[in-house]
Amino acid sequence: MSRKNFGSKTWLYPMPVLIVAAYGKDGKPNAMNAAWGGIYTDNTIGVCIAESHKTTQDILASGAFTVSMATADRVIACDYVGIVSGNREPGKFAKAGFHAVKSEFVNAPLIAELPMALECELLSYDKESNFMTGKIVNVSADEDILGSDGQIDVARLKPIVYDPVHHTYLKIGDKAGTAFSDGKQLR
Amino acid sequence: MSRKNFGSKTWLYPMPVLIVAAYGKDGKPNAMNAAWGGIYTDNTIGVCIAESHKTTQDILASGAFTVSMATADRVIACDYVGIVSGNREPGKFAKAGFHAVKSEFVNAPLIAELPMALECELLSYDKESNFMTGKIVNVSADEDILGSDGQIDVARLKPIVYDPVHHTYLKIGDKAGTAFSDGKQLR
Repeated sequence: MSRKNFGSKTWLYPMPVLIVAAYGKDGKPNAMNAAWGGIYTDNTIGVCIAESHKTTQDILASGAFTVSMATADRVIACDYVGIVSGNREPGKFAKAGFHAVKSEFVNAPLIAELPMALECELLSYDKESNFMTGKIVNVSADEDILGSDGQIDVARLKPIVYDPVHHTYLKIGDKAGTAFSDGKQLR
Repeated sequence: MSRKNFGSKTWLYPMPVLIVAAYGKDGKPNAMNAAWGGIYTDNTIGVCIAESHKTTQDILASGAFTVSMATADRVIACDYVGIVSGNREPGKFAKAGFHAVKSEFVNAPLIAELPMALECELLSYDKESNFMTGKIVNVSADEDILGSDGQIDVARLKPIVYDPVHHTYLKIGDKAGTAFSDGKQLR
């Protein structure tokens, strides 16, 4: 084994592309793009978002947020909300082509154009690490992306992956195996 | 928009397949499979692993761990270490077909068969949430998975994604877009 050492890097495969959305004090929706995060513990999500972001301030004020999965179908919009600050562009959400629909469960906007989202209540925000945690109150998905079993079909959802080395977004491909099953042959 | 509500679920796309490894007090390597986690903040990783796992106990004792990316080429071994407990099967690491090589940077084993890993020093473990954080001291990758630019090539690494709805492992596919770039056209 000959390995190359890259030093201390914030790299992982796969990294998610999480579109975090909240309502501002004026009732207008805002959204941002975050790759640092994942499931925190049972029914909770954790995501690292800087305190200066408008979305962060909106979540701290409203106590709620949604996390939509970025999709291959909306990659331009999902990248746009990661490039442009809501502090400087008040029309950011609409300019992305997003339409807000209020969550039935929390005081935060779902994004009509992104077909799967976690609807969350704010649990904690640590100003040192910028790590925010939220309780996943509900997961909702557009009927269009459900398979014949009534469950989310990843091939229809088309979530994207962030490649932190080449700064590209990647699609998800074919099945590689079955969890809690393939490994049994080594027992 | 017609959405189906699934209630409180621990679902996200993409979820990683993280192979967390550490040395036991006897110097023997152990490894487990974790999907709950991601980047925590700059140069740190966070992963949720139950206190009862042998690997958790080994990390708490040794103060170090590695996180290798599970790959399509080793899906059987990566699933196996998620099914079988190191507390009941002392030969788990070898039975998976894994060979340990000590990290140059931390007191934890790299896995020769998994070509990319984060080498980490334990920062914190919270017994309430089971959330562990580690400082990424080094990222290393096998020369075989580097592209002509000397960087990690995701097409050679072949990391897998966990689908929490159907309990399958998925490959990563083609490019969907370019980060910090595609969105500029909406400015």
